Amino acid sequence: MREVLELAEEARRAGRVLAQAKTARKNACLRRAADLLEERAGEILAANAAEAERAAGVTEGFLRRMTMDEGKVRAIAAGVRAVADLPDPVGEVVRGRRLPNGLDIRQVRVPLGVVGVIYESRPNVTMDAAALCLKSGNACLLKGGAEVQETNRALVRVWRQALTESGLPGAAVGLVEGGREAAGYLMTLRDYVDLLIPRGGAGLIRRVVEEAKVPVIETGVGVCHVYVDRSADLEKALRVAVNAKTSNPAVCNAAETLLVDAPVAPVFLPVARAALEAAGVELRGCPATCRILPGVKAATQEDWGAEYLDLILAVRVVDGVEEAVAHVSRYGTRHSETIMAEDYARGRAFLEQVDAAAVYWNASTRFTDGFEFGFGAEIGISTQKVGARGPLGLPELTTTKYLILGDGQVRE
Amino acid sequence: MREVLELAEEARRAGRVLAQAKTARKNACLRRAADLLEERAGEILAANAAEAERAAGVTEGFLRRMTMDEGKVRAIAAGVRAVADLPDPVGEVVRGRRLPNGLDIRQVRVPLGVVGVIYESRPNVTMDAAALCLKSGNACLLKGGAEVQETNRALVRVWRQALTESGLPGAAVGLVEGGREAAGYLMTLRDYVDLLIPRGGAGLIRRVVEEAKVPVIETGVGVCHVYVDRSADLEKALRVAVNAKTSNPAVCNAAETLLVDAPVAPVFLPVARAALEAAGVELRGCPATCRILPGVKAATQEDWGAEYLDLILAVRVVDGVEEAVAHVSRYGTRHSETIMAEDYARGRAFLEQVDAAAVYWNASTRFTDGFEFGFGAEIGISTQKVGARGPLGLPELTTTKYLILGDGQVRE
Repeated sequence: MREVLELAEEARRAGRVLAQAKTARKNACLRRAADLLEERAGEILAANAAEAERAAGVTEGFLRRMTMDEGKVRAIAAGVRAVADLPDPVGEVVRGRRLPNGLDIRQVRVPLGVVGVIYESRPNVTMDAAALCLKSGNACLLKGGAEVQETNRALVRVWRQALTESGLPGAAVGLVEGGREAAGYLMTLRDYVDLLIPRGGAGLIRRVVEEAKVPVIETGVGVCHVYVDRSADLEKALRVAVNAKTSNPAVCNAAETLLVDAPVAPVFLPVARAALEAAGVELRGCPATCRILPGVKAATQEDWGAEYLDLILAVRVVDGVEEAVAHVSRYGTRHSETIMAEDYARGRAFLEQVDAAAVYWNASTRFTDGFEFGFGAEIGISTQKVGARGPLGLPELTTTKYLILGDGQVRE
Repeated sequence: MREVLELAEEARRAGRVLAQAKTARKNACLRRAADLLEERAGEILAANAAEAERAAGVTEGFLRRMTMDEGKVRAIAAGVRAVADLPDPVGEVVRGRRLPNGLDIRQVRVPLGVVGVIYESRPNVTMDAAALCLKSGNACLLKGGAEVQETNRALVRVWRQALTESGLPGAAVGLVEGGREAAGYLMTLRDYVDLLIPRGGAGLIRRVVEEAKVPVIETGVGVCHVYVDRSADLEKALRVAVNAKTSNPAVCNAAETLLVDAPVAPVFLPVARAALEAAGVELRGCPATCRILPGVKAATQEDWGAEYLDLILAVRVVDGVEEAVAHVSRYGTRHSETIMAEDYARGRAFLEQVDAAAVYWNASTRFTDGFEFGFGAEIGISTQKVGARGPLGLPELTTTKYLILGDGQVRE
């Protein structure tokens, strides 16, 4: 663990330099890293291909996520350049005033210091997460999956060269190597890590939340619901339900459960079934759903809490907004929820009562995303209430401090 | 632990009601609680007096903090009424816009849900903390010190009656009884507690940070510094140093260490010593300080990290802003720090480089306080970077959610 501690100490020192780096310098570093990534694509793709070869017995999805190709390299480089184009959150005055005693007080955004990111075998995160951390003035410690360690090493070499060439300390991006113990140790470094972001599946996030001694922001587990109210425009509702489930089933803002208000269930469910099954979706229904839709597989208790990340949709008939809200509150992960309704009071009640990072009225849950919200790139979607909630973009990677200027004021 | 779990389940349900309670109803509850507190002062003071009797072997400070009297009752009631007078943070639109696809997005403040507060034997916290939690739409679970359990029971009866009479669920204020195990159990209730605030000494806070599985905001440990730069107006610097140390040494924003820039140390230290000793302060100096001030006790390594909360001041001679910042960064608790300087570049460097909730230029550290900052009552001063930093007032006891209104938008 000595290597991890040394890396963390270096990151702490580097973070102090980053915190005061001017925007132009940080942007130059990001643009240089994007260029270097493209220049070195050959070397990086070779390392990645060798690792993909060696990764025996992983699922198809896992292999797809761990594998890079030229298209992904270009997309990642474009993403890093896009972060360079975003406004710098550091120094923003959040609020400020002159106090009656003449003190001038300002609350300003400042970097957190050192951000730890624990993630799975997805090399794109090595570039995306570091770009966001550096732009917001933070050093970062990256702990990626072991299957892509060589790829990550090559990517961190890109970062370190870009940092050094831009006059910034290379140690501002550190790669934590080693297995579970290294990750576990990183989670205890209260003096060196200001925030830990787990990015990955439910198991990874649960482990971090259980073990960490440093502040954590949970991201990304999404058991999202589409609730079709009796007052819904059923055409819109169908469009949204199909989109929320099928437009990208592998992501956290995809719908996992469809809730249908009892009065419209006999009309809506057959139409929805046809459209969803045509899109390749397997339905798992509550008893009422199965009565309306003969042949649909019965849902078990596990289905209501399942994040399928696949073309599977649990379906339940509920009695109105109240029961829909109760279901969401019991089984949801407080990520993204939507109501399809044309009735004012019913829609407003859902918005008010559902406790989630994003609550929609007549739109797909799939919009919960930094780009779609108009904020730009993000490191994940926080489903936590303390710290940031929703997309974790640049401002969410900062903290604030109060600056108070006086001329000798003392307190009575 | 079953009682604690039941209390937490009830608080979760009560929190859902509180979250949607209108401001007028919450204010009526707070005002009623203040009235009831005064009406029942006799009964409450009797319970408290009996507990003070039984508290054998506690320090004088402890006894003072646990003891209530009529003056304290009036002050606490006034504090609760003052919280009723503060603006309600719930529903505030933090930001919002129309997106290019026609979605209307708003980020609005919403209550956290259930806030746990773990504190020592200070009955005033039972009233102050609950008032802030309820006004911000949260239920709360209070775990106070065992020495004032009867007093706290009487105070929670006041809350429950005020809640019920105002048409709000009494379970919105819960008193967690039992010893360390009950507190430890409370810290693990991720499904029921959204935020845990430890309020008390360093030991209590360390334990909560180490053991908690729910998000924690650390408060209140303050090893604060006054740095007197070579460019300081020494008269102002003397006034501020004496004020920061002596105006209320028992609080977290009091100064614990005085740093003096070497060129002005021979002039400033003798004058400072005279004034500080006249105010009853004991000095503990670094070797250079002791050379300038013969007879001053030598500081040990422990002194630099000590939160005396007493009329003791560690004194160190440093070489300029850089060494002052390095000392603060090594020994400070990121609470409140001040530089006394008339030179622009030196003052600005300190403000920029010191990492703390509040950084002052030419003013006493004693102003770090919700009232002094113009925000009103607070539950403590957060020295943490994730979640709120600085005074934890009403807005800091909320989270946000995104509300997105559309007319059937789907994502491509």
